[in-house]
Amino acid sequence: MIVELVSTGTELLLGQIVNTNAPFLAARLNELGFSVIYQTTVGDNRERMKNVLKTALDRADIVITSGGLGPTQGDITKEVTASLLNRSMYLHEVSAERIKRFFDERRICMPGNNLRQAMMPEGAIVVDNTCGTAPGVIIENQTTGKVIIHLPGPPHELSAMFEMSIVPYLKERFGVQGVIVSKVLRTYGLGESALEEKIKEYILSQSNPTLALLARNGEIHVRITARAENEIEARRLIDELEGHIRPHINEYVFGIDDETLEKSVGNLLLAKDLTIALAESCTGGLVTSRITDVPGSSSYLIGSIVCYSNAVKITSVGVPEEIIAVKGAVSQEAAESMAQGIRKQFSTGIGIAVTGIAGPTGATNDKPVGLVYIAIDGPAGTVCHQHYFNGTRTDIKHRTALAALNHLRQYLLIL
Amino acid sequence: MIVELVSTGTELLLGQIVNTNAPFLAARLNELGFSVIYQTTVGDNRERMKNVLKTALDRADIVITSGGLGPTQGDITKEVTASLLNRSMYLHEVSAERIKRFFDERRICMPGNNLRQAMMPEGAIVVDNTCGTAPGVIIENQTTGKVIIHLPGPPHELSAMFEMSIVPYLKERFGVQGVIVSKVLRTYGLGESALEEKIKEYILSQSNPTLALLARNGEIHVRITARAENEIEARRLIDELEGHIRPHINEYVFGIDDETLEKSVGNLLLAKDLTIALAESCTGGLVTSRITDVPGSSSYLIGSIVCYSNAVKITSVGVPEEIIAVKGAVSQEAAESMAQGIRKQFSTGIGIAVTGIAGPTGATNDKPVGLVYIAIDGPAGTVCHQHYFNGTRTDIKHRTALAALNHLRQYLLIL
Repeated sequence: MIVELVSTGTELLLGQIVNTNAPFLAARLNELGFSVIYQTTVGDNRERMKNVLKTALDRADIVITSGGLGPTQGDITKEVTASLLNRSMYLHEVSAERIKRFFDERRICMPGNNLRQAMMPEGAIVVDNTCGTAPGVIIENQTTGKVIIHLPGPPHELSAMFEMSIVPYLKERFGVQGVIVSKVLRTYGLGESALEEKIKEYILSQSNPTLALLARNGEIHVRITARAENEIEARRLIDELEGHIRPHINEYVFGIDDETLEKSVGNLLLAKDLTIALAESCTGGLVTSRITDVPGSSSYLIGSIVCYSNAVKITSVGVPEEIIAVKGAVSQEAAESMAQGIRKQFSTGIGIAVTGIAGPTGATNDKPVGLVYIAIDGPAGTVCHQHYFNGTRTDIKHRTALAALNHLRQYLLIL
Repeated sequence: MIVELVSTGTELLLGQIVNTNAPFLAARLNELGFSVIYQTTVGDNRERMKNVLKTALDRADIVITSGGLGPTQGDITKEVTASLLNRSMYLHEVSAERIKRFFDERRICMPGNNLRQAMMPEGAIVVDNTCGTAPGVIIENQTTGKVIIHLPGPPHELSAMFEMSIVPYLKERFGVQGVIVSKVLRTYGLGESALEEKIKEYILSQSNPTLALLARNGEIHVRITARAENEIEARRLIDELEGHIRPHINEYVFGIDDETLEKSVGNLLLAKDLTIALAESCTGGLVTSRITDVPGSSSYLIGSIVCYSNAVKITSVGVPEEIIAVKGAVSQEAAESMAQGIRKQFSTGIGIAVTGIAGPTGATNDKPVGLVYIAIDGPAGTVCHQHYFNGTRTDIKHRTALAALNHLRQYLLIL
């Protein structure tokens, strides 16, 4: 089955945003055994969009569009398809009701034009949107047997709708043979190319399962994808390949599939029955925020102090004034004292502290931008790690948060 | 002048890499006054690539391809163009020499197939590659006056070649196309459709400048884009339209272009010479982290306490036990007490507090997931705002952080 992806939106043509929907859809469709042969991007222009969709329907069996399902006048994808296929538009009551509810739940009165999102081409299969207001659309051409699918532009809405509704539809409609199962080993601590070196022979030699490396905000994901008659067989193929590559990368693997660094840290804290408190300086609360992204984190996170000023480091976290004066707020001594101080103050099992120079200012001759100290105090004593990170201020904050979570994970593992 | 971008490479079709070349080229070409009307992606397949290039040359004046200039058998872009235009290929001696030197300088013996990169279509203008081995190619069709340009795939090679050689060529070949200037009014507090209703007449009536609404992580950006002979004229057109729409949306505009909500809050704190401290519960430090994303925020942010447990709310922030017991930790009274407590404890000009139910658990009959209280204490007294947010745990945290920053901004504006 030949698939063409059509991304709509003038903001794409102007280069104002990078298109992440197309690679997501392309990767998943290939895993499902569909061949994505063309990808086209067109602006919110009726004539040009019509031409693009016509060409796509000529050369592909399945056309999947993203974007242009919003409530505004610029959102024209459904109308263009309707006119291309000579179908009239009607108000889909169920969707209209769902959209009204969406606003009621937020105690907001719904702007009238949001009902545009409930207008559908005659004979369309309406697909629920669980993350937003715009429903998806599936239109089957009975004579040609070809299918056009409209998905919303926001990536989290598109991916959720694709996994929940479109994948089952495609499997049922086109009788996908067997199953495709993926397993992701999430790693931290090694770059993409360095990780690739360790398992290159398997990446090159493998056709089923396939092995792919994906860089994801500082993590590298190793995705193993197997195609087989049934799930048991697919799992067996995956386990076999994982058995081969694990010895080469094991120390860097922190989680499986959607297990984040903060989730694996949370699981370890629960397993060891430990509570935690944080003292953050340069990360400004980012590490604590990541920890609280995990549902149920309130059962081990007691609290944190963002001690941005030296005064707060001294008065609220209990760092001795001499350390700040002699060693500086960005020093191993300060970090260790912060970790011990916050653990004592909130009487937790673990105390972790971060201090560093996020930049762009604040550097000295011996302390460059990106210098960070991460200290952990707990049952195994106090440890401190020194890092030199690069990038922008927010890059450094992000990399520091990842490193802090990973050091915490390693500290908890040996307890 | 109409431009079509053609991205080649099976890795793009497979979704293995995100295409950053297209948005780079699109943004730069629009700045130069060229209109990028279509973007197409095709794999390393002669027949399909030939069809895509033929279609592109039919509907565009200038076709710019990226990728497929490498040394491998899969790199076929130049050959496909040559056969499409009925031109033979020849070895470009200068490029061959340069490629040999490239390897000699690195003391590496050159693989023979690298000479494929020096093969050029007859009559092509060869463009030097200062960052890699693959030269670029410009082919002019004397009869149609149309131009096809081949650029290498690696982003740093492509961008360098575009700036150094292609921009001067386009300016010389097609004359100055004038400029396109954009200005973004960043708004918060109104949904995309509600905002559109306020300025719909202008969106529908405008062709130059154009008006576009873009939803960006909870903000709505109003983009005004003008095309003109020069920047001064473009700015004049933008100012004129902005003058018309401002009265309708002014209360929701918090920043211009890349001015974030936290940046505008920071500017206000500096202007009013006020310091700030935060007490965060359900956001877990996210609001403080956003505030510290701004360089120089250490001059007004003193510190924060993430009071996740009730014990910390009571002991570290000074919330009276009765309030927690009678009204609950998620209540207007608790939020106001937290804001007053943190302001007093860190002796700052402003104290802001957030408490709510991020979910998925923790809801009660009268307190659903998404219920959030945001309180601010400062020179103008104590104010508290109640919200009902929806979405996942992280959605609710994100929406709460945006609302908190915006309430803070509005509080500071009236001081």
